[in-house]
Amino acid sequence: MQGGHRGRRATEGAHGVELYTYYRSGAAYRTRIALALKGVAYDSIPIDLAGDPGAQNDPAYRAINPQARLPALRLDDGDILIQSPAIIEYLEETVPEPPFLPKDAVLRAKIRGVAAIIGCDAHPLNNSSVLKTLRTAFAADSAQIHAWVAQWLTLSFMAVEALIGDEGFCFGPSPGLADIYLIPQIASAQRFDVPIAGWPRIVRVAGLAASHPAFMAAAPARQPDAK
Amino acid sequence: MQGGHRGRRATEGAHGVELYTYYRSGAAYRTRIALALKGVAYDSIPIDLAGDPGAQNDPAYRAINPQARLPALRLDDGDILIQSPAIIEYLEETVPEPPFLPKDAVLRAKIRGVAAIIGCDAHPLNNSSVLKTLRTAFAADSAQIHAWVAQWLTLSFMAVEALIGDEGFCFGPSPGLADIYLIPQIASAQRFDVPIAGWPRIVRVAGLAASHPAFMAAAPARQPDAK
Repeated sequence: MQGGHRGRRATEGAHGVELYTYYRSGAAYRTRIALALKGVAYDSIPIDLAGDPGAQNDPAYRAINPQARLPALRLDDGDILIQSPAIIEYLEETVPEPPFLPKDAVLRAKIRGVAAIIGCDAHPLNNSSVLKTLRTAFAADSAQIHAWVAQWLTLSFMAVEALIGDEGFCFGPSPGLADIYLIPQIASAQRFDVPIAGWPRIVRVAGLAASHPAFMAAAPARQPDAK
Repeated sequence: MQGGHRGRRATEGAHGVELYTYYRSGAAYRTRIALALKGVAYDSIPIDLAGDPGAQNDPAYRAINPQARLPALRLDDGDILIQSPAIIEYLEETVPEPPFLPKDAVLRAKIRGVAAIIGCDAHPLNNSSVLKTLRTAFAADSAQIHAWVAQWLTLSFMAVEALIGDEGFCFGPSPGLADIYLIPQIASAQRFDVPIAGWPRIVRVAGLAASHPAFMAAAPARQPDAK
């Protein structure tokens, strides 16, 4: 099966795999990359985070994900998984090819460490709910929002640049776990005008991903709910 | 070997496993719990995050961890691992007993999902560097800091309460991955006067952990650098 979004398959019963997603959500974006790399076909169920209130707060969606965040993945049998790190590890465990991680335990930990720099230190500080709270609770203006995002992205990208390899994707010729996390964060950087030119390894990885089919299929602009 | 901190072992050469840690760091705390549960003995190397500048910014520590954050784990052979989620998965892969996760892939994903609610959505918003930036960039006073912490912890704890089980630890009679993440976050809640009484499942897990040797050994007050 080809990865990426497709129309609902009329011939395969009521439910295939369904991803609750929003085109600009970084966590949904990384999950879309992972699904596309593994070749898992799915239907996209858009949840409009930009509404007021956001659609993630609808009781119908809260019944699917009590955290009221994206993404959520409904499996063929109806089980629902939440949180992109958990979904991505699930995909790695259940769809072995292509692997997101090598077999060596130390190298796996080093790659997971780079993923966690993005997933636990960069992304959580520039997601939409945090920026909204800075605007409402601290009256942050756009310059302050920019400075906030730039501060955390810069610290994280500096560390990522020091830890990834000198050629290919982050850790080799094929994309893996670190790339899955890094590419959506680069998109956030671009959206907030945080330049990445000072980190040549990151620039290199971004360039490779830009012409890789799975990363292209997962990009925000290619999603059915893109505005 | 018993888990937890111990003095350097004079009989075993220059280096055993070493954990770069700070007693009050939530990420170091969860790593200490994981090490203690797996029975991995280690030496604690305190890094004082509360200094000005914090000791994590010393060039000597940056050479160990380019992200200048805690924890970092130096293995017996000198390899250095960073980021608590990566270190904890490494321990699970290399020290099978006791397991942090069951064998079923969907259940593993559900447990990792709860861990990620804490690791990716709660903890990143109340770590010391974020609160320091709120104070410096937005002149946040203590009431605003409290409200900020309470907002994110409440959202996360509501979701955790909905997703964990009705008896035992988060997902059964023995502690596992979700408990490793949850307990340090409860300590943060107590430190910031965010009451947890409204979440009876979380209260139950906290009670069990309070008398479990591994959780007790990892607690901030039991660390050599506790103030």
